[in-house]
Amino acid sequence: MKNFVIKGNACWNENIEQIHCEPNAYLVCEDGVCAGVFHELPERYADLPLTDFGDKLILPGMTDLHVHAPQFAFRGLGMDMELMDWLKTYAFPEEAKYKDLVYADRAYAQFADQLRRSATTRAAVFATLHVPATELLMEKMEASGLISYVGKVNMDRNGPDYLCEKSAQESLEATERWICDTKSKFERTHPILTPRFIPSCTDELMHGIRRLVEKYDLPVQSHLSENFSEIEFVQSLCRDSKFYGDAYDRYGLFGGDHRCIMAHCVHSGEAEIELMRKNGVFAAHSPLSNANLSSGAAPVGKLFREFVNVGLASDIAAGESENLFRSISAAIRASKLRWRMLDQEIYPLTVSQAFYIATVGGGKFFGKVGSFDPGYEFDAIVVDDATIPHPQELDLQQRLERTLYLADDRHLCAKYVAGTRLF
Amino acid sequence: MKNFVIKGNACWNENIEQIHCEPNAYLVCEDGVCAGVFHELPERYADLPLTDFGDKLILPGMTDLHVHAPQFAFRGLGMDMELMDWLKTYAFPEEAKYKDLVYADRAYAQFADQLRRSATTRAAVFATLHVPATELLMEKMEASGLISYVGKVNMDRNGPDYLCEKSAQESLEATERWICDTKSKFERTHPILTPRFIPSCTDELMHGIRRLVEKYDLPVQSHLSENFSEIEFVQSLCRDSKFYGDAYDRYGLFGGDHRCIMAHCVHSGEAEIELMRKNGVFAAHSPLSNANLSSGAAPVGKLFREFVNVGLASDIAAGESENLFRSISAAIRASKLRWRMLDQEIYPLTVSQAFYIATVGGGKFFGKVGSFDPGYEFDAIVVDDATIPHPQELDLQQRLERTLYLADDRHLCAKYVAGTRLF
Repeated sequence: MKNFVIKGNACWNENIEQIHCEPNAYLVCEDGVCAGVFHELPERYADLPLTDFGDKLILPGMTDLHVHAPQFAFRGLGMDMELMDWLKTYAFPEEAKYKDLVYADRAYAQFADQLRRSATTRAAVFATLHVPATELLMEKMEASGLISYVGKVNMDRNGPDYLCEKSAQESLEATERWICDTKSKFERTHPILTPRFIPSCTDELMHGIRRLVEKYDLPVQSHLSENFSEIEFVQSLCRDSKFYGDAYDRYGLFGGDHRCIMAHCVHSGEAEIELMRKNGVFAAHSPLSNANLSSGAAPVGKLFREFVNVGLASDIAAGESENLFRSISAAIRASKLRWRMLDQEIYPLTVSQAFYIATVGGGKFFGKVGSFDPGYEFDAIVVDDATIPHPQELDLQQRLERTLYLADDRHLCAKYVAGTRLF
Repeated sequence: MKNFVIKGNACWNENIEQIHCEPNAYLVCEDGVCAGVFHELPERYADLPLTDFGDKLILPGMTDLHVHAPQFAFRGLGMDMELMDWLKTYAFPEEAKYKDLVYADRAYAQFADQLRRSATTRAAVFATLHVPATELLMEKMEASGLISYVGKVNMDRNGPDYLCEKSAQESLEATERWICDTKSKFERTHPILTPRFIPSCTDELMHGIRRLVEKYDLPVQSHLSENFSEIEFVQSLCRDSKFYGDAYDRYGLFGGDHRCIMAHCVHSGEAEIELMRKNGVFAAHSPLSNANLSSGAAPVGKLFREFVNVGLASDIAAGESENLFRSISAAIRASKLRWRMLDQEIYPLTVSQAFYIATVGGGKFFGKVGSFDPGYEFDAIVVDDATIPHPQELDLQQRLERTLYLADDRHLCAKYVAGTRLF
């Protein structure tokens, strides 16, 4: 059933600056790939099954480029600290619970279910250091219908006793077993190497992860330049590095020959941004998280200008919600406050730019994802905005804009991932 | 039916720094006023009808201290400009439509219905300059069950031809007729004098409004120190004033002998803050609006410290949602970004402080409102947080915190205003 037509009001980014809206359009899916959006259905598709969504909006699915599944349990809680204290006080104790598979089963079921019902069709997910729970999470993500990368976390230093791997060797052996177990096990769910961040990983561990990148041709996800104390700590640990990203790069874990996601990039300077561009590193912009933990606001406008890949991220639980509509408006607001309070050289995000990073921007990590241009994988959400009342006429651009500011899972009435309908 | 008992988990601010949570509590309402929260129901209340809300949360109702009813139609739209251009491009054209009572009827019905279903139990509302539509709005607010002040807007200069009163005299005569028509007409809905802001009002108009304040003993609402261009404009119009608030004060429209709400106060300096404190002016903090229009973030922590009254506001439509839960977390985030990017002398808001301004802080404008302490009017919302899944045990403080970050109208299952149940 990956060949079909859906009909409705299609809205997607023509490019980063412009959103195209096509009323009463026919969106054709062939073998899970978008064959095009048509004002009239071409004769050659006349025999395909058609679902008419009437006056509803059809948008590309969104990519959550950075989300911590085990932190979903405490979203909306405990954001009265900055990063390093927050990790010790809230994140690490919660993550330690995932040693217990009964708890992990209950918690990850809730996470996967909520993601299934959200606007997210793709995700790059952190699990914990525990291999069994990570595999369980992968099973649940697979069952959710989303396409995702899931990472067993590596951390062998500076963690609490109850959440720290005993040695680099132990961590690497567990990781390699996990890779072998899972790399071909699922259709939609794939392993991604996940050193937590430099403060949590010894040199030996980082070098070993680099070897796994090469041996198994895997992507990498980690954290970068989120918080001033963190950045100082990294500098004290990697004295030869010129900046945080350079430290990853010296381990061979900063893109270039592999796909790489770095979450946050709040305080990335010129040289770091230039290296991200050169190496094709993806910045996972997490506006809710960066505000909630008082980290700041990332220079997203500048990342664009310098041709860095940028995707949007919920960063649960430092971000409180999996609902990426919330992150879209939060990204715009954070960029406006940054412009007003910190740096008038970097213009605020437009609605079009924010929609772009939520769809095409992060989708690019997964290939041709996040657009309805021909050749893109068929990820789509169908939005019923009729329950957001208005007394006046609205055109499609306006309906989309309102949706981006106000919608959540209750407004979604259908979702497709690579041509498979989830609901 | 204003004498009853409800049972559930009560959470309210003991003071600005602390939230009190009372599990399985009996909240007693006598003649619309809270008689207390009890662990065991006192014998003297045993005959009152009791509604048991089980494990749900019971919170004080919230006050929206600044909201533009006619802008509700375009919430979530057109926030790509700063204040003065935004007014000309989006707000004024929409407000002009309220000359047409058919349109006003449709639009205000949606506004009042949405407010009825929200966490808001009290509101200070801007209408437009049109008297008939303003009276219609008052009828709808009355029917909604909320207690509110509604203001016919005064504006006799610097507006577009299609939305500007022809003279101060005409504006004042219309306002006085409207006051006489409505001041005793409703049980829950009252007029408030509403000069839009100084750029929109001639000296003659402001002096006339002052006379109406005295003659009818009415409160005042307006805008203050929202945006740099606006502040400069006011200074150019009121050359003798020392600061924006001083200009209002010279007209006799800045509190002191009358209750007064000033929305925004983003850029209020020392002297303005001191005058607000002295005159008991309420700051209506509008964090979503102030970010959406790139105005900045108000120094809320400083306002507290200087003993200025602070309430929370949605400021629809520059704020995109009537859901004050959203404004609570936005207020915390804005204060964190302000702390990080602008001024480390003013600490970020805590959850307790943000909950306080949403309940007691703004409620104070209406009297003893926003708390479950004995003697407070019985405004309450009942929240079913069971649909926000979690795998672990949570205590009441945690459940409240999650609710403040994540809830919306779908989580509300009952609402009381001054002892009257709305749903």
